[in-house]
Amino acid sequence: MGLQDEPGQNPVNPVNPVKKMNRRERIRANRQQSPLLKRPFSQPFSPLAPLDLLSPPQIEQLHEASLHILENIGLDFFDDEALAIWQQAGAKVDHASRHVWPDRGLIMEAIAHAPSQFTWRARNPAHSVVVGGNALTFGPCGGMVYATDLDKGRRPGVQADYENLLRLTQICPVIHFGPWGQTEMHDVDVNTRHLHRLHAGIRLTDKALMEAAHGRIITSDNLEMARILFGSLDGDPVIGDVVNVNSPLRYDDRMLGGLITYARAGQATFITPFILAGAMSPVTMAAAIAQQNAEALAGVALTQLVRPGAPVIYGGFTTNTDLKSGSPAFGTPEGAWALLVGGQLARYYKLPYRSSGSLTNANVPDAQAAYETAWTMWPAVLAHSNLMMHAIGWLESGLTASFEKFVIDAENLAMFATFLESFTVSPETLALEMIAEVGPGGHHFGTSHTQARYRDAFYQSELAERVGFESWQGAGGQDALQRANGMWKSWLQQYERPPLDEAVAEELNDFIARREVELAGVDVYG
Amino acid sequence: MGLQDEPGQNPVNPVNPVKKMNRRERIRANRQQSPLLKRPFSQPFSPLAPLDLLSPPQIEQLHEASLHILENIGLDFFDDEALAIWQQAGAKVDHASRHVWPDRGLIMEAIAHAPSQFTWRARNPAHSVVVGGNALTFGPCGGMVYATDLDKGRRPGVQADYENLLRLTQICPVIHFGPWGQTEMHDVDVNTRHLHRLHAGIRLTDKALMEAAHGRIITSDNLEMARILFGSLDGDPVIGDVVNVNSPLRYDDRMLGGLITYARAGQATFITPFILAGAMSPVTMAAAIAQQNAEALAGVALTQLVRPGAPVIYGGFTTNTDLKSGSPAFGTPEGAWALLVGGQLARYYKLPYRSSGSLTNANVPDAQAAYETAWTMWPAVLAHSNLMMHAIGWLESGLTASFEKFVIDAENLAMFATFLESFTVSPETLALEMIAEVGPGGHHFGTSHTQARYRDAFYQSELAERVGFESWQGAGGQDALQRANGMWKSWLQQYERPPLDEAVAEELNDFIARREVELAGVDVYG
Repeated sequence: MGLQDEPGQNPVNPVNPVKKMNRRERIRANRQQSPLLKRPFSQPFSPLAPLDLLSPPQIEQLHEASLHILENIGLDFFDDEALAIWQQAGAKVDHASRHVWPDRGLIMEAIAHAPSQFTWRARNPAHSVVVGGNALTFGPCGGMVYATDLDKGRRPGVQADYENLLRLTQICPVIHFGPWGQTEMHDVDVNTRHLHRLHAGIRLTDKALMEAAHGRIITSDNLEMARILFGSLDGDPVIGDVVNVNSPLRYDDRMLGGLITYARAGQATFITPFILAGAMSPVTMAAAIAQQNAEALAGVALTQLVRPGAPVIYGGFTTNTDLKSGSPAFGTPEGAWALLVGGQLARYYKLPYRSSGSLTNANVPDAQAAYETAWTMWPAVLAHSNLMMHAIGWLESGLTASFEKFVIDAENLAMFATFLESFTVSPETLALEMIAEVGPGGHHFGTSHTQARYRDAFYQSELAERVGFESWQGAGGQDALQRANGMWKSWLQQYERPPLDEAVAEELNDFIARREVELAGVDVYG
Repeated sequence: MGLQDEPGQNPVNPVNPVKKMNRRERIRANRQQSPLLKRPFSQPFSPLAPLDLLSPPQIEQLHEASLHILENIGLDFFDDEALAIWQQAGAKVDHASRHVWPDRGLIMEAIAHAPSQFTWRARNPAHSVVVGGNALTFGPCGGMVYATDLDKGRRPGVQADYENLLRLTQICPVIHFGPWGQTEMHDVDVNTRHLHRLHAGIRLTDKALMEAAHGRIITSDNLEMARILFGSLDGDPVIGDVVNVNSPLRYDDRMLGGLITYARAGQATFITPFILAGAMSPVTMAAAIAQQNAEALAGVALTQLVRPGAPVIYGGFTTNTDLKSGSPAFGTPEGAWALLVGGQLARYYKLPYRSSGSLTNANVPDAQAAYETAWTMWPAVLAHSNLMMHAIGWLESGLTASFEKFVIDAENLAMFATFLESFTVSPETLALEMIAEVGPGGHHFGTSHTQARYRDAFYQSELAERVGFESWQGAGGQDALQRANGMWKSWLQQYERPPLDEAVAEELNDFIARREVELAGVDVYG
């Protein structure tokens, strides 16, 4: 029983089967062996109505509570320029306590300038993505301290780890953006790390770029490198990053410097309060989400006061505290609520929505890691996350990038991409004549209808084991983690560096060399 | 950092702390240590709109295609009484080929008699459940051949395994029904296995009963045991089971005998085509689902011709074939489509919906097992599965019941139950005065609002590991599978057998003793 792919899959040169293939030809032929890698790069557009957890009156209640927080409680803005911008816009500002009470009119008028959708350009135009509406994008984990894999174990990340994660980010067609800190580069000087991190992202990938929105020095360097790469920063954004709120109710100088510099240059900011209910907000989820909303609205409004129309994304990163350990709890029912309601609020304000995808507390890519990831990805997809960050590779509460989990999460993202394609109902796919022809008790393996379609009929998994227990055990009995280990190494072998214009490469090298000298001894976070 | 539960949780007798507790008191006190076991038994009622994958016109297309199949292609019914019932109802019947072509008028009129909702009574009235509407129920895996756990490995199931799985079914408050073949009892004679299986279910649990709808002999025995237990079979149903279709387009004698016997007694049937697209139906999912629908409608209609108003559930078990191995592929995007659209069709016909929950091909409870399970449970929940069978413990394409996966799946069901409770938005939960009081940069750990609520604020996991890497490693570095192993053994220790009236117990014993003699040498599947 069972259809088999045709035997004899050893790659041969399709033009001249006798001629030995060169490396690049071998790579391309091999890639055809990975169902996941041979997928085209394409964004999912959800055919589903976004899933609403709360009713419209409940969303109104959260909105009203947020406006109350903004008007009556207010937020700290630890940056003089930010305070001046608020003051000029008419907000009540106390410069001594660096505190702002923006009123509802100011907030709502400001956010009305923000685009509900924009294009995020990549240096390879085929990798540019739409952010907004029912378009989804998936990105890798970022901000990780450690890297881990089954061979070398867990260690502080270094540039070589980062570069391998970038290669996987590039080759994996279900990742739509995101060279950023997949893992920290501890072997690179802190002072110039941002330069080398972005440079690695530019050299090794051609997808849409993220790089730290940290203060004015780093972001100005990032903008200059982006300008070199794209020729100009005019038009749709080419770089972006997260602006986190120091919840409760505080934007610090580092984040505000980044927000103002990026927004002024027309680049994308992802305004994201990080709230653990019970720690940075009251323990009740309604309060946590109302506070998230107030904080996010303030940041979004500020980007529009800096530059009306600047691309900005409403972000949420709210979950509960584990009240036994005091740690963040990831992949929880409460986190799922926050993911869904965050999407409802973003849509209420007609803003693109940023969430996260592969969050887990697990210390190894085991069943807990997989189910907590599912508890994040499913609501994130159902909430129409226009930007799903941390959708791949995240382990250990965000401390560690796992090469094996990268593969497991990639598999799931490819499944979501397939799921969101839905299926066609038509006379051809209903195939009533085949049902009649095969009749009761027959089987459809050998029919012309099946034969014509079976190769591409279904999602093909590279990771899932579908053979019976005895065959599986006889072949070594590897679990998903062990199989994933083989896969990422195979994927790395199939990586090809995207071409980069030589003059651009040289200009980037020159800029970095100059900045390395200039930044010696400078506090880049100042 | 972090709130701690109060120290000193060693159980003491609450009435007289000095007096040593007896076994039952110790069990009860211990159970308070398991966040999952101390949950109340309660059904989830989904606050979400059911998730529609297809548009209403597409559902109409599937409906029309199904009627075409019924009227023009027809189905085999390998049972003389079933053929007579169809003929009496006016269907076109060919007795030689045992084939029926029911027309749309007959089908639609018959299914209109089926209740859209009913109560499934358990012998403990607190465990009776509603089947229909937005009510969900979760049940254990069934029909498994093997049992497995980390201690003893995989082996053909025996009565002792089955009884332990029943104990877990009973104690686990997120399981709402279902003593049935959690694993086969290979050490019990086939001839009387159904008697001892149901007897074990009655003795060890007090939840709603399933038992094989296999032929007339077995189902009559089941009905007699149910009558002994409940006094009478009048009123809402007290027993039910799956009636599978031998897809494509065939009901065999065993299933028809079961269907007719249960329906006539007013007991519940779950009509479920088992379709692997590409094998039992055309390879296209539209065809697979149209065929599923035709087959299910025929079975549902037959129950209503037997007894108008008999409780019946529209079931789907459609996924794709893995075209590399010829095996069923579980936890796939295509399976998720079928789960969602099955729910849409059941609602179209105003019938309760049966799906499945923890399906996977994995041979061990690893990351694959967890994510494939999520790929089944999430769409099953979103489709408003009124009866989610196989929601717990399923491994290895349905061959094996895993004790560890039982725990992992239970954890997920408890998370879904919590998720579906949603949360309250009110002045109290918005807690604006606490947000003001704590202010920017503060923290909410110690506030009166948090202190008053933290014990029950969030879902508490028994399985999830949320401590940091070093602490976890220092404590042995167990993965989820190893932790689950400890948990099911602890749960078994906390099991208490539900009381059973002595006269009833005696009558059941007498019945079984008598039937053991009568069934010697009888082909119970005849």
